[in-house]
Amino acid sequence: MAVTHQGPKGTRDFYPDLMAVRRHIEGAWRHASIDCGFDEIEGPTYEHLALYTAKSGPGIVNELFSFRRAGGDDDYALRPEFTPTLARMVAAKAGSLPLPVKWFAIPVHFRAERQQRGRLREFVQWNVDLLGVEGAPADVEVIACAVLALERLGLKPTDVRVRLSHRGAVGAALAAAGVQPDRVGDAFELLDRRDKLEPAEFEKRAAALGLSAEARARFDTIAAARLPVDADAGALALRLGVDQASLAGVLGLAERLKAMELAAWCEWDFGIVRGLAYYTGTVFEIHEASGNERAVAGGGRYDGLVELFGGPKMPAMGFGMGDVVLGLVLGDRGLLPKDALALLPRPDAYLIGDGSEASERELPRLLMQLRRQGLHARASWKTTKNVGKLLGDAAKARARFAVILGAELAQGAVALKDLDGGSQELVPLAQAAARIAGAPRP
Amino acid sequence: MAVTHQGPKGTRDFYPDLMAVRRHIEGAWRHASIDCGFDEIEGPTYEHLALYTAKSGPGIVNELFSFRRAGGDDDYALRPEFTPTLARMVAAKAGSLPLPVKWFAIPVHFRAERQQRGRLREFVQWNVDLLGVEGAPADVEVIACAVLALERLGLKPTDVRVRLSHRGAVGAALAAAGVQPDRVGDAFELLDRRDKLEPAEFEKRAAALGLSAEARARFDTIAAARLPVDADAGALALRLGVDQASLAGVLGLAERLKAMELAAWCEWDFGIVRGLAYYTGTVFEIHEASGNERAVAGGGRYDGLVELFGGPKMPAMGFGMGDVVLGLVLGDRGLLPKDALALLPRPDAYLIGDGSEASERELPRLLMQLRRQGLHARASWKTTKNVGKLLGDAAKARARFAVILGAELAQGAVALKDLDGGSQELVPLAQAAARIAGAPRP
Repeated sequence: MAVTHQGPKGTRDFYPDLMAVRRHIEGAWRHASIDCGFDEIEGPTYEHLALYTAKSGPGIVNELFSFRRAGGDDDYALRPEFTPTLARMVAAKAGSLPLPVKWFAIPVHFRAERQQRGRLREFVQWNVDLLGVEGAPADVEVIACAVLALERLGLKPTDVRVRLSHRGAVGAALAAAGVQPDRVGDAFELLDRRDKLEPAEFEKRAAALGLSAEARARFDTIAAARLPVDADAGALALRLGVDQASLAGVLGLAERLKAMELAAWCEWDFGIVRGLAYYTGTVFEIHEASGNERAVAGGGRYDGLVELFGGPKMPAMGFGMGDVVLGLVLGDRGLLPKDALALLPRPDAYLIGDGSEASERELPRLLMQLRRQGLHARASWKTTKNVGKLLGDAAKARARFAVILGAELAQGAVALKDLDGGSQELVPLAQAAARIAGAPRP
Repeated sequence: MAVTHQGPKGTRDFYPDLMAVRRHIEGAWRHASIDCGFDEIEGPTYEHLALYTAKSGPGIVNELFSFRRAGGDDDYALRPEFTPTLARMVAAKAGSLPLPVKWFAIPVHFRAERQQRGRLREFVQWNVDLLGVEGAPADVEVIACAVLALERLGLKPTDVRVRLSHRGAVGAALAAAGVQPDRVGDAFELLDRRDKLEPAEFEKRAAALGLSAEARARFDTIAAARLPVDADAGALALRLGVDQASLAGVLGLAERLKAMELAAWCEWDFGIVRGLAYYTGTVFEIHEASGNERAVAGGGRYDGLVELFGGPKMPAMGFGMGDVVLGLVLGDRGLLPKDALALLPRPDAYLIGDGSEASERELPRLLMQLRRQGLHARASWKTTKNVGKLLGDAAKARARFAVILGAELAQGAVALKDLDGGSQELVPLAQAAARIAGAPRP
């Protein structure tokens, strides 16, 4: 049977350089999550298929990789997103979890879609969720975590924008534009798909919602409304065509964003609704500033979802951020080193022997002693006695120190070469580990 | 459609406490790998089904979760192990990879088996591989990495044993016992399955290999042969019934294990062959000392495998260590805290406001400033003004410091309480972050 060297379409082979970038991104995600007080969780890589069809209907099956065990009768699917797993896990322990629940996860996800720029069949996605608390402080706690990670990856407010909206305010604006209360959900869907529809098709659907020509123009104004996050209530009310009472959610969010010094990253974009029907309040997407890439992240408030999965009523806010678009943005902005291996931890010590019996005896012992003291220690696999060449290998491996086991071993000493500073000195073999461990790190 | 709160059989929901244990184990694996000079890689979670049937034959299909995309015609399978992916990745870049290749990975794997103690359908497995170098130094480099991780998890040579064998020596012993050269492979298989077979079935199969009653007794002696790793050549030769020339591989391995101060962890167990047909030299398993659990780890030399996957001839040595049995052993030995959340990083600061306007304004600002300085900072979500109760919450969260934003804000100061030492002092608001960042960590 023919064996291919290629992995499945839309998946990635993470050789050390690509893996270094992945861990760099995941590290920023993980540490931002922890510093914001979120605890890490994980779930199964596959779930019962019903977990996804319950939320999204049977239409989702074609976007999933689904399967059964040979001889089994349970249908499973590789997880396309994390929220159903999260909702299931919260619902299962809702009686005993202390609130608020602040969880993050960095799982891989799968979509049986055609591969495109920024979209793969297997990808890593950071999920951050805060459950059990309503209101702007909870919304902003989640957004703060996203911004903190982006800052730590070197991005600036001129590189990426947090585009915010609020379904409450937009719902009021749609009602004011003439959408009947029972059609607001359909109107959200139309707003979400607006950029993907031909104008004629859009007109047709808008008319089907009962919108007059004037109301369709108002609808366009809402969809295009972009304002700075510190816009005052009057300007917002005017643009959305609502009274200021409808803006309570929006104004509370803006105030908290300013208090946490996040306003520079954010702007109002009332065309953002997030397609999923389960969002209930604040919604947001993070985009590369030019808007040319797919969204870096997206999320919002989903106060009804845990209940849908059999749990209690529970307020909830969260987002997902994938590694694929983010990696493209970081690369485009020059925020990844040309040689990604530079992201990896440097060896503390690179051991070089001279091939003598004493060196062959002492080198493996020293190598393991260094590691047992928590140092990253490598040794040459070459048998050459050309120490100059091996020192070149040590520098290429980006080692901090080379330890040369040569003739001085007869006096119980080794040569310790500082590969950053260039200095070299003889030190007793028994003290080499302590000297390296004690040296200041660059 | 009914939604269940349960994940699929044999998978795990990693709530924060279980996740803390998983990250604790993975952290020991990752840091041991890095300190031993291995670089991390990853591959796709699923591969072409043919990648597994090529190595193991079509019989493996029942042990796999396999699937197709709706409307697609490629057969895929969730990876049951990492070695085929590794061999594929090495083969694909064999011309350009600098040797030796030293890689590790910490992927999840899947087996469509019945759940048992120590065996799940989804599990995490640490894989460490060294390719491009033959001989004992490479074998022991890989074993050293496994032992380093076990040491760092708190295990001792009295807790777990590295049981070593060598197919060269055992092959010579089988030949000396009367196994014909073309039946050595079958004899390895019989040796491997010996403990699982009924005595009558074993006798039947041994007879089918052409073994006389006397040879079957020799076969039993080989299978039961356990010796200390520093046993001398004469003792080994006598036990295996071979001449000392057949022991070159075994003796070289023992010498290197002693040089790296690993001998205390190791013993010879010539009943270990590892079932997989592709092992070629050194083989080993790591077991809990009593032998009552499944293997903690297993691996060996597989010099022909990369070639089987279309690459060049390339010497290779590696092992896999799963998280399930290891977790049981750590728990049984008291090496995991009763409350696994104690494994998580402690908050540096826990912010408490008094509900005043000044505190409501300054608390979110300080919270984010602390995080921007790399500190782990949380705030209470409660609106109580009972500072004593909130200090209790801060201690329960294991915070190092509580920062109380109270009446002193009028003078631009906050109360900083050291929750380990118990002391409390007023510090200027603007200096709170620097004071916490500069305090020695416990």
